[in-house]
Amino acid sequence: MEVTTANKENAGAFACVWLWFKDLFEKSRSKVVEVAREAKTLGRDDPRRIIHSLKVGLAITLVSMFYYFDTLYQGFGISAMWAVITVVVVFEFSVGATLGKGLNRGIATFLAGFLGVGAHRLASLSTERSEPILLGLSVFVLAAAVTFLRFFPKMKARYDYGLLIFMLTFCLVCVSGYRDDEVLDIAHQRLSTILIGGAAAVLICIFICPVWAGSDLHNLIATNLEHLGNFQEGFGDEYFIKSGDNKSSLQGYKSVLNSKSTEESLANFAKWEPRHGRFKYRHPWDQYLKIGTLTRQCAYRIEALNNYLDSEIQAPLEIRVKIQESCTKMSSESSYALKELALAIRTMIRPSTVNAHIANSKIAAINVKSLLKTGLWQDTDLMDGNTNCHSCFNTYRCCRLH
Amino acid sequence: MEVTTANKENAGAFACVWLWFKDLFEKSRSKVVEVAREAKTLGRDDPRRIIHSLKVGLAITLVSMFYYFDTLYQGFGISAMWAVITVVVVFEFSVGATLGKGLNRGIATFLAGFLGVGAHRLASLSTERSEPILLGLSVFVLAAAVTFLRFFPKMKARYDYGLLIFMLTFCLVCVSGYRDDEVLDIAHQRLSTILIGGAAAVLICIFICPVWAGSDLHNLIATNLEHLGNFQEGFGDEYFIKSGDNKSSLQGYKSVLNSKSTEESLANFAKWEPRHGRFKYRHPWDQYLKIGTLTRQCAYRIEALNNYLDSEIQAPLEIRVKIQESCTKMSSESSYALKELALAIRTMIRPSTVNAHIANSKIAAINVKSLLKTGLWQDTDLMDGNTNCHSCFNTYRCCRLH
Repeated sequence: MEVTTANKENAGAFACVWLWFKDLFEKSRSKVVEVAREAKTLGRDDPRRIIHSLKVGLAITLVSMFYYFDTLYQGFGISAMWAVITVVVVFEFSVGATLGKGLNRGIATFLAGFLGVGAHRLASLSTERSEPILLGLSVFVLAAAVTFLRFFPKMKARYDYGLLIFMLTFCLVCVSGYRDDEVLDIAHQRLSTILIGGAAAVLICIFICPVWAGSDLHNLIATNLEHLGNFQEGFGDEYFIKSGDNKSSLQGYKSVLNSKSTEESLANFAKWEPRHGRFKYRHPWDQYLKIGTLTRQCAYRIEALNNYLDSEIQAPLEIRVKIQESCTKMSSESSYALKELALAIRTMIRPSTVNAHIANSKIAAINVKSLLKTGLWQDTDLMDGNTNCHSCFNTYRCCRLH
Repeated sequence: MEVTTANKENAGAFACVWLWFKDLFEKSRSKVVEVAREAKTLGRDDPRRIIHSLKVGLAITLVSMFYYFDTLYQGFGISAMWAVITVVVVFEFSVGATLGKGLNRGIATFLAGFLGVGAHRLASLSTERSEPILLGLSVFVLAAAVTFLRFFPKMKARYDYGLLIFMLTFCLVCVSGYRDDEVLDIAHQRLSTILIGGAAAVLICIFICPVWAGSDLHNLIATNLEHLGNFQEGFGDEYFIKSGDNKSSLQGYKSVLNSKSTEESLANFAKWEPRHGRFKYRHPWDQYLKIGTLTRQCAYRIEALNNYLDSEIQAPLEIRVKIQESCTKMSSESSYALKELALAIRTMIRPSTVNAHIANSKIAAINVKSLLKTGLWQDTDLMDGNTNCHSCFNTYRCCRLH
């Protein structure tokens, strides 16, 4: 009897453990499947991500050759690690970001090495007791000053990484010098391995399937205008022939609302890039930011319009029927204008019929207004959307991107 | 005669050079004055910036003590530089950012060191010829995989720096191991100096005038609500008693429009922070993001309203006079509600009269609506602003921040 109970208990415990393992296995399997699915989506959405990963692997493997071949290793020794570190840290997704980081790192290392050696020489002129105090003081002052400099918005935008590396190298050279009398050798080896690593990263980044931040910015600005155009295109149907839920094609503009930081960082990267494709060296990247700001302003109004679609406060049916034709016309003409502007940016060909569409849209807007006035009614939002589309166009003309 | 000409020419050239120098001097003087003024503004706007700079200087100077004292230097030797590097790289403005980077760096170094030593041991079991090939292959595969992992949005948000350091350390340990048989020593020394540097940075960051990202987020959300309240407060006067240009107090909401990235990074940092002040360890930081999103949606509508202030399309005077009282009431009651919500967030005390203000505002809105209906007129924007203020309040109640 007792044996059977013990057996049963054992079997119960075993079943428990078995269930726990099975549960754990199931959970981790579903987790792995989930991650794999996400990875697949990430790769399909932008295959350049997979290529970028392979490029980074290639660059690091190439640079680590320093260690494998005796002839190469003899020249640099332990300093070869700076080449590996530089590749890992500098290699970014776009050419602009990589070049920016590489140049920042190279120039900052050079300047800081120079200054560090100088500070070390000056300090070594003093007595042995005051040397560490002088070195410590110069490290403190420089580190505090450079850290404060990083708060300047202009510095932060373009030279943040350079300032960090400047501080780092100065401190390293300055303090290592106290221990190692071959300061010049250290500075020299560090600089040359960083240059080699940086060059490897930049060359692989530029010559194997390059990702240009400038092109990305160019396409982003055009796509954002298209999103606004899509909304304007669908707005008439959605408002007058309500299909219940908002269509998903109308929701594209939402990504425009928060595009500011992406646009700014892309423009910053683009400024580092050399001439490529249709973009010259001093392509007016800042003008894209101006168009981006106007596009966002337009998107804010479209957001207000979209909320209006969902809200319960609606105009009476008789008024809606009255203005349907003019209103749809106004909206679709704005849409044509926006989409043509987007196409013009994309192809860099001066748009020809935008003025006509804007004029048509304005006429339709005046019609709507007079129709509403006869009923003492006015729909400000619709007018606003139209006004803004026009201001968008004006900037576009000002920008003279081609 | 000739001599005089030559003299004159000399004098002319001298004057030219003198003017050029004077010009250069003037320019650089004005540049220096400009930079000094900007630095003063930066320091006055947020004195914590100056303190932060001094803290960084102090931390680096402390860590560089490793080099000055013989007893300390004997233990670590050249590896002491990793402590300096870690402080420079890890020390960020807020406690959360510093802790996040420090933990990422520490844990990533530990894991990668472990894995790197393992890979090195495995490779050294093979023949001498295949060893570099095996090592190179593992470096390539790991670098590519980790680089791809950095594209996952969740990883990017919290562990981006850790993944970078993981890749870096693995490659370094793996390849250095090929040359230096004291791999374990390298890994161990690197890890311990990084821990020392990280600890110095984190301790100084926390115990000397700490800057908490969580408090900053808390205040930012409250300030943003206040900006919206200020607009609503001034809107009635501005619309009905037009003073020409928009007052600057009405423009505060503009900073809310693009606050998304700031809020998200602050929330990410805040999650790393320990219990501090009125914030517990697992304070619901994500709820702040929800309030932030709703605040922005409200700001989009206010932007539309503000454009309406500037636009030429205005309601006829007789209608404006008719709705002035109710409209101003609606707007000011919304303002009271928003400002009380802001104060409630700031003080973490449940608001008492918000419901009453919202109800008053709704009554005023119904009044405006009925007044407009008698004239067949409806001002959607004003209604929208009110609806949104109410939705803001609802979320606030849902969030249960206290």
